[in-house]
Amino acid sequence: MTTVSRQAVVELLGVLAYGELTAFDRLAEDARLAPTLRGRAALARMAVVEMEHHVRLTERLEAMGADPYAAMEPFVAALDAFHDGTRAKSWLEGLVKVYVGDGLARDFYREIAAFLPGPDRALVEESLSETEHSDFALREVRAAIAADPSLSGRLALWARRLVGEALTQSQAVIAEHDELAALILEGSGDLAGVGALLDRITGAHTERMHALGLNT
Amino acid sequence: MTTVSRQAVVELLGVLAYGELTAFDRLAEDARLAPTLRGRAALARMAVVEMEHHVRLTERLEAMGADPYAAMEPFVAALDAFHDGTRAKSWLEGLVKVYVGDGLARDFYREIAAFLPGPDRALVEESLSETEHSDFALREVRAAIAADPSLSGRLALWARRLVGEALTQSQAVIAEHDELAALILEGSGDLAGVGALLDRITGAHTERMHALGLNT
Repeated sequence: MTTVSRQAVVELLGVLAYGELTAFDRLAEDARLAPTLRGRAALARMAVVEMEHHVRLTERLEAMGADPYAAMEPFVAALDAFHDGTRAKSWLEGLVKVYVGDGLARDFYREIAAFLPGPDRALVEESLSETEHSDFALREVRAAIAADPSLSGRLALWARRLVGEALTQSQAVIAEHDELAALILEGSGDLAGVGALLDRITGAHTERMHALGLNT
Repeated sequence: MTTVSRQAVVELLGVLAYGELTAFDRLAEDARLAPTLRGRAALARMAVVEMEHHVRLTERLEAMGADPYAAMEPFVAALDAFHDGTRAKSWLEGLVKVYVGDGLARDFYREIAAFLPGPDRALVEESLSETEHSDFALREVRAAIAADPSLSGRLALWARRLVGEALTQSQAVIAEHDELAALILEGSGDLAGVGALLDRITGAHTERMHALGLNT
C-alpha cells in the first residue's frame, strides 16, 4: 500500500461528491421522460440515493477539515461537460445511461478506492454500492428491446457515445489533477498496472452491454 | 369529528403524494438556477426531503390497500398545470416559490389534515413539517432584497401570480373530487367554516410575504 496524500483523498472525495450531485440532477431530469408515474417515481427515488451519498461524502470532507464546495469546484466543468454532452433524449437513453454510465463510473472509482486508507475506502465503496436501481434499468431496457428489437442498434450507438465521452472527460480530470494521477499510477504499481485496470473496467463494461442485449 | 370516508383519505394522501413528487421535481430543476454550488446542493437536499415524504405517503396508501399510482393519477393534470404555469425563471423566483408556495400548500393541507382520523392526521402533519428549508429561502431572499431593493416589486408580483395560480388549481382539484370537497365542507362545519379556513390561510400568507419584505 502506497502512502496516500491528504490532497489525493480530498480530490477523490471531491470528484465523487460532485459526481453524486450531478447524478442526482441527471436522474431528476430524466425522471420527467418516464412514460409512467411509476417509472418517474422510481427514477426520483434513485436520485435521492445519489444525494444521500453526496451528503456522506461532504460530511467526510468536512470531518477532514476540507471545504466540500472548494473540493468539488475543480471538477464541475468536466462533469458538467460529460452530462451536457450526453443528455438523454428518451426514457430508454436515460436508463441505458443509468446502467452503463453509472456502472463505468462505479468500477472506476472502486478501483481507485482500493488505493485509499481503510475508512475512506469503506466510505467510497459504500457510496458506490450497487442498488436495485441497476436492476430496474436493466429490466426496463431488456423488455423494451424484446418488444422492439430495432431499438438495439440505436441504444448500442448511444452506449458507445457515453463511453467515449466518459473516457474523454476522465482523462481531462486526471490530467489536471496531479495528486489524483499520482494516486492511480502509484496504486496500480506502474503503467502496465494502469493498463490492467483499464482492461478490467472495459471487461465489466462489455458484460453490462451484453446483459442489456447490446453489441459493443 | 365527522366520519371520514376511506375514499376521502385516499384522495387526500394521493394529492399529497403527487404534490411531494412534483415538489421534488421543481426543487431539482430550480437547483440548477443556483448561483453557487452551495445553493445548488441546498436545494437538492430539500428535494430529497420531499421525496422522503412522498415515499411515506405512498407506503401509507399501500398499507390501506390502495394503489398509490392510481391514487396520484387524478391530480397529475392540475398539479402539473400549477408548476408549468409558475416555472421559476431565476434563483430568487425559485426561492420565493419555495417559501410562499410551499407555505400555502402546507397551511392548506394542515387544515384538511385536522379533519382526518389520528394516524393519517399524524402522517400528513409530519409530511408537512417545517424544515430548515423555509429559513434558507427566507434568508437568501431577504439578503438579495437588502442588496437590491428594486427586486422587491418584481418578486411581490411573482408571489401574487403564485397565489393566483394556486387558488385556480386547488379550486379545480376540489371541484373534481367530491369526497375531498365533502371532507372540507363537513370538516369546516359549513360554508362559513370554509370561509374562516380561507381567512386563516390568507392571513398566514400575508405574514410570510411581510417576512420576505414583500407587499401583498
